[in-house]
Amino acid sequence: MKMNLEKLGERIIEGGDILVEEALELANLRGSALYPLFGAASRIKEHFVGDKVFLCSIVNAKSGRCPENCSFCAQSAHHKTDAPVYSLIDEERMVACAREAEKNGSSCYGIITSGTSIKKGEELERICNAVRRIRRETGITPSCSLGIINHETASALVEAGVETYHHNLETSRSFFPNVCTTHDYEEDVNTVRVAKKAGLKVCCGGIFGLGESVAQRIEMAYTLRELDVDSVPLNFLNPIAGTKLENAENITPMECLQTIALFRLILPTKRISICGGREKNLRDLQSWIFFAGASGTMIGNYLTTTGRAAEEDWQMLKDLNLSVASCCE
Amino acid sequence: MKMNLEKLGERIIEGGDILVEEALELANLRGSALYPLFGAASRIKEHFVGDKVFLCSIVNAKSGRCPENCSFCAQSAHHKTDAPVYSLIDEERMVACAREAEKNGSSCYGIITSGTSIKKGEELERICNAVRRIRRETGITPSCSLGIINHETASALVEAGVETYHHNLETSRSFFPNVCTTHDYEEDVNTVRVAKKAGLKVCCGGIFGLGESVAQRIEMAYTLRELDVDSVPLNFLNPIAGTKLENAENITPMECLQTIALFRLILPTKRISICGGREKNLRDLQSWIFFAGASGTMIGNYLTTTGRAAEEDWQMLKDLNLSVASCCE
Repeated sequence: MKMNLEKLGERIIEGGDILVEEALELANLRGSALYPLFGAASRIKEHFVGDKVFLCSIVNAKSGRCPENCSFCAQSAHHKTDAPVYSLIDEERMVACAREAEKNGSSCYGIITSGTSIKKGEELERICNAVRRIRRETGITPSCSLGIINHETASALVEAGVETYHHNLETSRSFFPNVCTTHDYEEDVNTVRVAKKAGLKVCCGGIFGLGESVAQRIEMAYTLRELDVDSVPLNFLNPIAGTKLENAENITPMECLQTIALFRLILPTKRISICGGREKNLRDLQSWIFFAGASGTMIGNYLTTTGRAAEEDWQMLKDLNLSVASCCE
Repeated sequence: MKMNLEKLGERIIEGGDILVEEALELANLRGSALYPLFGAASRIKEHFVGDKVFLCSIVNAKSGRCPENCSFCAQSAHHKTDAPVYSLIDEERMVACAREAEKNGSSCYGIITSGTSIKKGEELERICNAVRRIRRETGITPSCSLGIINHETASALVEAGVETYHHNLETSRSFFPNVCTTHDYEEDVNTVRVAKKAGLKVCCGGIFGLGESVAQRIEMAYTLRELDVDSVPLNFLNPIAGTKLENAENITPMECLQTIALFRLILPTKRISICGGREKNLRDLQSWIFFAGASGTMIGNYLTTTGRAAEEDWQMLKDLNLSVASCCE
């Protein structure tokens, strides 16, 4: 069944959906046969989310000592890695990093903490205070990624001015046991629902190259669609020494782009941002991510790995004739 | 007149031509509207010349002291630049560089000499001897670029085993007087004809970003089509201190890609290789050149500027799932 991507693109643009079997078939495309898939993804993106690029940055506000055993993670206490270990940074530092992110042109700034959840009381309060100051003193939109949360914490974050809560599913339901055995997938799914119920937008995606199959990547995309998340961060594994996946084979650039395009077709109206592992996995093909359907990218450093200088990303966007979305678009 | 690029691509694939006015209209496309143009160029390229990439390298065998006043050229005696000045390198060196180029994966190796023409007698003989040795001792195909030549020189090169003669028109007939006033455009056109008549294939293209208009770029493409050259090297100006164009504004990456695509549509069956100025002008978009219709690229250093390491180009080709054409394909 040779897919007519023009027609499929039009169907999705007119509000129709892509079927799982169609996505699985598109997953078999290779080499230049992928170009029409990218073309369709690009048209769908522009139709639903426009052609501006959304930039975001993060701060690793609390690092290491995580009791979870996620196979890829340098911050897991189950791994011996060089990832820094420190407790929650102070409010001043959170606000200073927000200013730095704004200076770099990011519209969204994520405060990320390692660990299954943050401790109620002092830790949550310090973050909420920082969010309030960031709201008052900068033009950047603060978001938080504090692990598994309940309604009380979610409401506190809303009250402090958090707009978006980030919590990844990391992979598909069927592959998750291969990634993490210290908590259940449904706890992550539930965190997404709790955050939405409290009135937060949800930024939820995952990481590819963990050993999952293409079908499992597609499975994850459909789960995100069911949960109706608001933005989807896509990471590509940057194997870190000391983790279970230190010797994992890198996902190829064209496979990264194919994954982005499939997510765009399955999640046509969502913000899809390319985050961790972009430079490492895409190399010379980084400039293809927007053609493949992404509408945003993280700039600056990642959680435990460094990103390239923001100026290089800005030059790439200029070279692509792409402009940057300002904050709340 | 909104061009249907699908239909235009099919017309060209079926042997039809693109009209000048159609090319001029495509020259107005900007941003993501260029993606379908690249898609059409890519399909046309694959139809006529396949999806393998042709790699070539050159040696600057005689440098500087050129009496011509080409505005872009660091080797012109009319300019004060840092370009090295040396007479014709010896046969041993020419052969050694051929081996280096072969090691880098190039299928074609160009022996280039500055100056209006090379001197008959000793200079020509030394080059012909080197060509004979390169033929015997390596698997790479030697080509020559020795300026304006007559039938006698062309025949000597054929006899020595040269397959392709390189001689650029540099720009369009109408813009040429702005580039060079020390010789006439028709001398270059005639050199192409002389070489073809002697049984040589001809590699003939030019350089963009000299101040020419888009229409003049298109004009040059149609002149090359009339001359029925065999391969078309496209260079993008890398402004060199001391030349008339030292402060020229760089042509943008998308303009470079648009030019490549237009040349593919106008010269559908030809080998189109991206040469000088690729890294400088295309930056993160170097990986788009083949999608835009190019079927080859120069690797290693250029005449008077350095190229990036061959390994980086090989990684880019691998990442694009593109394989390299072996020598005489």
